[in-house]
Amino acid sequence: MGIDEDALELHRKLRGKVAVTAKAELTAETLELLYTPGVGVVSRLLVDDVDSAQELTGRGNTVAVVSDGSAVLGLGNEGPVPALPVLEGKALLFRALAGIDAVPIALEVDGEDSFVDAVRAIAPSFGAINLEDVAAPGCFSIERRLREALEIPVVHDDQHGTAIAVVAALRNACRVTERSLEDAAIVVVGAGAGGAGTARLLRAAGAERIAVTDRKGALGPDRDDLDEVKRSFVDELDLRSGGDVGEVLRGADAVIGLAVPGAFEADSIRAMADRPIVFALANPDPEVDPRDAAEAGAAVVATGRSDFPNQVNNVLGFPGLFRGALDAQLRELDADAALRAATAIADLIEDPRPDRILPDVLDERIVPAVAGAVAARDRVR
Amino acid sequence: MGIDEDALELHRKLRGKVAVTAKAELTAETLELLYTPGVGVVSRLLVDDVDSAQELTGRGNTVAVVSDGSAVLGLGNEGPVPALPVLEGKALLFRALAGIDAVPIALEVDGEDSFVDAVRAIAPSFGAINLEDVAAPGCFSIERRLREALEIPVVHDDQHGTAIAVVAALRNACRVTERSLEDAAIVVVGAGAGGAGTARLLRAAGAERIAVTDRKGALGPDRDDLDEVKRSFVDELDLRSGGDVGEVLRGADAVIGLAVPGAFEADSIRAMADRPIVFALANPDPEVDPRDAAEAGAAVVATGRSDFPNQVNNVLGFPGLFRGALDAQLRELDADAALRAATAIADLIEDPRPDRILPDVLDERIVPAVAGAVAARDRVR
Repeated sequence: MGIDEDALELHRKLRGKVAVTAKAELTAETLELLYTPGVGVVSRLLVDDVDSAQELTGRGNTVAVVSDGSAVLGLGNEGPVPALPVLEGKALLFRALAGIDAVPIALEVDGEDSFVDAVRAIAPSFGAINLEDVAAPGCFSIERRLREALEIPVVHDDQHGTAIAVVAALRNACRVTERSLEDAAIVVVGAGAGGAGTARLLRAAGAERIAVTDRKGALGPDRDDLDEVKRSFVDELDLRSGGDVGEVLRGADAVIGLAVPGAFEADSIRAMADRPIVFALANPDPEVDPRDAAEAGAAVVATGRSDFPNQVNNVLGFPGLFRGALDAQLRELDADAALRAATAIADLIEDPRPDRILPDVLDERIVPAVAGAVAARDRVR
Repeated sequence: MGIDEDALELHRKLRGKVAVTAKAELTAETLELLYTPGVGVVSRLLVDDVDSAQELTGRGNTVAVVSDGSAVLGLGNEGPVPALPVLEGKALLFRALAGIDAVPIALEVDGEDSFVDAVRAIAPSFGAINLEDVAAPGCFSIERRLREALEIPVVHDDQHGTAIAVVAALRNACRVTERSLEDAAIVVVGAGAGGAGTARLLRAAGAERIAVTDRKGALGPDRDDLDEVKRSFVDELDLRSGGDVGEVLRGADAVIGLAVPGAFEADSIRAMADRPIVFALANPDPEVDPRDAAEAGAAVVATGRSDFPNQVNNVLGFPGLFRGALDAQLRELDADAALRAATAIADLIEDPRPDRILPDVLDERIVPAVAGAVAARDRVR
């Protein structure tokens, strides 16, 4: 495992993954035009016409990448500073893949209210907000409240970026196995941010038969141990109940693991429908070894890892999603936009095969395709 | 006045004055090392050792340039969006002059408490905070509360950047006119952020005879119309009272205008001591025309403008001040640091003349000299 050493060394060398650089050379002349006294006319203009900030400032191309560190990678609630290198990595990806100016903002806050207040306070500088590594269930209400309060897109990527990548992958996995997404029995293992976002987007994509499980089994109306968020989620998606993960998987067409290693097993895959679809997306270690899944009969296997075929990674979605939103000056990104993004990614693979349901995450066609689809604003189904 | 047109055109062309750029090329390998899974080891390390963020993230070179837009240039309380181009200009200067990654943060807040809360919330991402264009008297308590709450430097530049530039200029103006700063009778015209910061730093520099005036005349114990902030300021600096601006200026050695055009007049300069020092620093239009001041007998005249000799501008101070603080990982910037900065700027002019008391604002010697002096941490007087 030299990767840890290499990662530390590169982090030490770079001391941060993004820089803030000047867009103009500083001379006596540009000092006067861009600072005092020249900036005065621009400020005055913005007093009367706030919207012209789009043309006169960098706001329209700038995204805040915000976390309170309550769910840093798989590490749990570790606070803002451990989240910072993740946010910086994301900012680097925004720049490198989508030409977006992304600012890492690690928040020291105390609860949902202060999280919402802080993001509302800084919002005037930004064209969109990317929430990152925020723990469930707080992430759901924080995102909802910010969407209501702000007139710029607010996207919790752990919900929606994940959902976009999964739905793109599942579309093509269904093509490979000659299933329809609408009719397939799909089990989402994991009811956190990724599981909830994915289940919702699957429903928006037309999937009729969805089950969602947490550590205690399938969510459903018979469960009396659910918190308010999970209970409303059961109502919203009309989830049926059905016992533990092994029982729910019996006869299912697809399983989407967004949980932890061991959350489902190869034996359960054997009990699924013929030629099942198995996504084991826990990072860095999948729920089940992809080789074991294949041996258990899975027709298509995907993981979150780059060293196996079919890497399902948020990087497929968020750069183009935000690029499109900024280009079209969208005020929100809804399920329709996410579906257009997922479809655009899936459509880049003309002839899906079991080991090729998705483009490579660094495929340069992805961002323009996704951004164009998102900006198009057409409703899809 | 083609400058307004030129400024607007350049702003439209640039669409923001700073960019967020990647410090490493994005490849399959750097994606793994800088994002998932490689970033995990860095986050884990930061959980146990928050201070290593200095080596492993960009925080140690990153400054937030924060305003609520309550005092945008001379425009007054215009709100966050009109402040944004100013903050961006400042970020450009931080980068171009001092190699600092500076992030414009325009705040939508409602009062001091929410301003303080917002800055406390975002602080984990930053190595220092530059407050900008925040109105008096709120700016004083906001800065004080943030300094108490945070373990990184917090500097309201309208107070301290101004003060540094003025004290540097006044040191050399005193040399030119063979005065001692300690004994000179100095009148600061303007009791806002700039006036208060300057008066305090003059006192810290050893000046014994300071008067400060607001629109109604000299601040002093006999004034019964002062708000709490101005009253405590009178006590702190032991200000004597003395009538209106014209009366206070009679016999004074130096006047420092940090007010508005017309705040004092050429006739008052005639009533000052022999060969007086006149700084008319209101921007973009000085309190008194510098040619009229010279004609009225001023031995040294300075303004905030680049088209007259002796430009007194915050740009002289803040880039090196923050560079030094970040280099030395200072937890606060106090009056001693500001004095070291002012002295370093003044000392760059070996042989001051009436029309040459300061280096040009873009003189490349300034930032290293100031940063070195600030980082040295020696007490000066």
